[in-house]
Amino acid sequence: MKKTFLLLSLFLGIAYANATDYYAQYRTDWAQKAEQYKPTLNETVIRPQSIVEFVKDEKAFQGWKANIIGEAKPFFGQSFKNQKEIILDLGDHYTGYFYFKLKEIQGIQDAPVRIKFTFGETAPELSTPYEPFNGGLSRAWMQDEIVTICEINDYETINRRLACRYIKIELLGSSPYFDFTFDDLYFKAVSSAKESEYVYDPNLSKELNDINRISLRTLHECMQTVFEDGPKRDKRLWVGDLYLTNLANNYSYQNYDLAKRCFYLLASLADENGRLHANVFEAPKPHPQYGTYIIDYNLLYNVALLDYYKATNDIETIRDLWPVAKRQIEDAMQFLNDKKIYDREKSAGLWLFFDWKNELDRYVAMQGVTIFSLQKTYELAQILGKTNEVKNYPTFINEMKSAAKKYFYDKNQKLFISNGQISYISQVWMVLSETVKGKEASELLNRVMNTPNAVTIGSPYGYHYLIEATIKVGMKSKAEELLINYWGKMVEYGADTFWEVYDPYNQYTSPYDFFPLNSACHAWSSTPVYFINKYFK
Amino acid sequence: MKKTFLLLSLFLGIAYANATDYYAQYRTDWAQKAEQYKPTLNETVIRPQSIVEFVKDEKAFQGWKANIIGEAKPFFGQSFKNQKEIILDLGDHYTGYFYFKLKEIQGIQDAPVRIKFTFGETAPELSTPYEPFNGGLSRAWMQDEIVTICEINDYETINRRLACRYIKIELLGSSPYFDFTFDDLYFKAVSSAKESEYVYDPNLSKELNDINRISLRTLHECMQTVFEDGPKRDKRLWVGDLYLTNLANNYSYQNYDLAKRCFYLLASLADENGRLHANVFEAPKPHPQYGTYIIDYNLLYNVALLDYYKATNDIETIRDLWPVAKRQIEDAMQFLNDKKIYDREKSAGLWLFFDWKNELDRYVAMQGVTIFSLQKTYELAQILGKTNEVKNYPTFINEMKSAAKKYFYDKNQKLFISNGQISYISQVWMVLSETVKGKEASELLNRVMNTPNAVTIGSPYGYHYLIEATIKVGMKSKAEELLINYWGKMVEYGADTFWEVYDPYNQYTSPYDFFPLNSACHAWSSTPVYFINKYFK
Repeated sequence: MKKTFLLLSLFLGIAYANATDYYAQYRTDWAQKAEQYKPTLNETVIRPQSIVEFVKDEKAFQGWKANIIGEAKPFFGQSFKNQKEIILDLGDHYTGYFYFKLKEIQGIQDAPVRIKFTFGETAPELSTPYEPFNGGLSRAWMQDEIVTICEINDYETINRRLACRYIKIELLGSSPYFDFTFDDLYFKAVSSAKESEYVYDPNLSKELNDINRISLRTLHECMQTVFEDGPKRDKRLWVGDLYLTNLANNYSYQNYDLAKRCFYLLASLADENGRLHANVFEAPKPHPQYGTYIIDYNLLYNVALLDYYKATNDIETIRDLWPVAKRQIEDAMQFLNDKKIYDREKSAGLWLFFDWKNELDRYVAMQGVTIFSLQKTYELAQILGKTNEVKNYPTFINEMKSAAKKYFYDKNQKLFISNGQISYISQVWMVLSETVKGKEASELLNRVMNTPNAVTIGSPYGYHYLIEATIKVGMKSKAEELLINYWGKMVEYGADTFWEVYDPYNQYTSPYDFFPLNSACHAWSSTPVYFINKYFK
Repeated sequence: MKKTFLLLSLFLGIAYANATDYYAQYRTDWAQKAEQYKPTLNETVIRPQSIVEFVKDEKAFQGWKANIIGEAKPFFGQSFKNQKEIILDLGDHYTGYFYFKLKEIQGIQDAPVRIKFTFGETAPELSTPYEPFNGGLSRAWMQDEIVTICEINDYETINRRLACRYIKIELLGSSPYFDFTFDDLYFKAVSSAKESEYVYDPNLSKELNDINRISLRTLHECMQTVFEDGPKRDKRLWVGDLYLTNLANNYSYQNYDLAKRCFYLLASLADENGRLHANVFEAPKPHPQYGTYIIDYNLLYNVALLDYYKATNDIETIRDLWPVAKRQIEDAMQFLNDKKIYDREKSAGLWLFFDWKNELDRYVAMQGVTIFSLQKTYELAQILGKTNEVKNYPTFINEMKSAAKKYFYDKNQKLFISNGQISYISQVWMVLSETVKGKEASELLNRVMNTPNAVTIGSPYGYHYLIEATIKVGMKSKAEELLINYWGKMVEYGADTFWEVYDPYNQYTSPYDFFPLNSACHAWSSTPVYFINKYFK
């Protein structure tokens, strides 16, 4: 009886899995390939170069700058009980693990010592008190750790990966009966990118050279065992970030195994209906952020696959993942209505991103990204000889373009309007989707950039698409101007890596209500390396 | 040329070692034996019994008491994001390591969590803010640790050994996007003592039963890989504490290997002139607190050896360590002058302990402890058949006793006076050394206890000798009264283990200017187990 029940359960279990898991037959293979292409990280030992102090400076970004006050070397061997506090400078942004070794220099350790280490990507991050903490994300993202050293002996480490340039060390407790020093201290930096590819290009302006260099560093830091969105905070793979880092990688480090791993990993963790999750985690074992989807991100997954194929000719990967690409289109299209535009009611629960801009109405952009993705996915089908599976795409594309013009285009204002709103992003996606082309398209972009009330761009992520659209319509010098005005300003402010958030109108802008929580090294800000190497060289 | 120099250096090196290291020929053997007898610790997994709150209570010791508000079990599985803070009660004092395991209960962990754990031996210790810290020892002794959990997965631990009954847990940081619980949490208690030997003895009063039980627990907690002075703070082997714990051990757990290890360890780490260091550390490798000597402690080492031998008949150990015993006597005697009392000038730099009492003049006590040690060391020589090596001891004993009576005894007051000062400790050591005996001795003790201006006892360490002296002169009921008045009062106050410091006149007395730094479980307070089992059963 029990045996029968067990067999029945197993049978039903399998039947259930087959019936409901869209990718049941592929998942194991994808997960294995994701694992197979997991890179070994390159390790580099970095010791601090300088001792710095942070000083208030109105001209500095977020009001603080780092002044070098000496070399780091003499710090080692000196009494830390006398020093009590120090800020060390690694000289650049690094991602990795921290090690230190204490040594008794007077008396015998008769009590534990208590030391606080705070790791910061920037001077203002380390100069702003974290308490009382009112940030909108976990306080635990802040990289301050208190350690108790019971026995001074060998190297000690801090049990988390860190991302920083500066290390602040404060003595919180020690015995009156002995003294000690830092005998050694180093950062084991890790990345799956080779060391920086940057070489000064005399044919480029200094500004573009700087932007190129810092983009490379940003990408380098985000290249771990996936393309992480930020090595300090979030530390996971998002589909939208992958779209951008894949582009940047194609034009720089060309670590195609890493890209391949990311494609397979996302696919292996898609939900039972075949929809990709917006982001996935690698540890303790790979898992998605269940229930989290961004439809525009998923449509860009297909485009990233095509970009990857064009860079690699790796047909096996796009053949493997073709069911995913096709499924993302099907998934998105279900929210269209008879007019071939997204139905606001059907799609009410969807998370659409496009840019960090709360007020942005995203329906024109959704129309655009869907057309864009349909075109690129059809190109994938052509490469794979599978156009018969997507015969209806060309019709969809035409119908959606017509619908966009019919329902969103305002002939008087000569702009696309999304629920009464004029935005940069709406026009950008009408251009990228080739709903408008040629002179019409360049005029559209110029027009929105001259519309004072238009909703502007809110993030480096959004800026990427604006610049891409600007280049697409042939306005290369405008694109360069935008690049230099936005990323170039971060360079002027002394950025070592490009930031998650840069708001030219408010240096303290934070989506988390606490600017030190912002990531100062963010994958989605690394695409100038793509623009410069693809278009400006 | 180089080779010759090297050989010469080696030769001189060896010669130097032989000439200056008093124990050169024994040291390796002693160190090996210390290692050989290092006990394996017994491990016991303890899970919290209750949830408590600490409430202010004027009647409670140091103003705070713990009220049980529920069983611990329901805490597991509940949202810790809602709970935010909790105090768990292990039900008794434990020494060991802490483990915990978190579990997601809603959403997916998308950010690290930051949790503060504070471990406390007592309610007041956990109810008093540690900052701003003005204690006279390292702040790092306080057992509060902040941990960042980047990935909820397996068991986590805190990288230090702890001593506590209560565990306070505070949530310092978590993500708004997921919730978690404590899936498990336990304390791996360690001790080289067997589980408590205590059984209720119907022939003893309730007070003595309680004192016996708590003494056993105190000793149990201090029995690690050496007899530690306190499992929370200091965590090392002191010679004076060994004298007392060895007595307590002989009348309870009888872990003679542990005692043997301590004797050998101290010997192997004596200085080049053969003088024992006052205390030694086991890690990272065994080492003394260089330059720290307490002469009265060293003289008691010999007595402890004799006590150990009487309990074990282990002649090998006392034969091995005989050179150490003899040397401690020689070392002390060099500070005597022609009158056969300690020369204040010669001995000016010496650290004499006897009791925690700043104002105490210790010269009469030094006279006493030296006579006491001479007698016991001579007894060792008799056992070993080595009286020929210490032929002069009986003469020394007589001369020192006479000198004590001649130079320290005030015939009018009928008390021993140390530099003009009347103290309990001076009389106690005149009794223990048998400088005065019989009726004269009991009168001496009664007299000092009825002298209002006499310097009283300041610590459990000092109390031990007072009670020992009281019993020695036959005043057993007085000894019981002292025991019950001092240790019994700690029982009344709810002690789980006996304290490092108990000042009947000020509950907040701390030698470190911060009472939560005091150890609430201290080896030197465990000797009631010796008194009760030796004299009161």
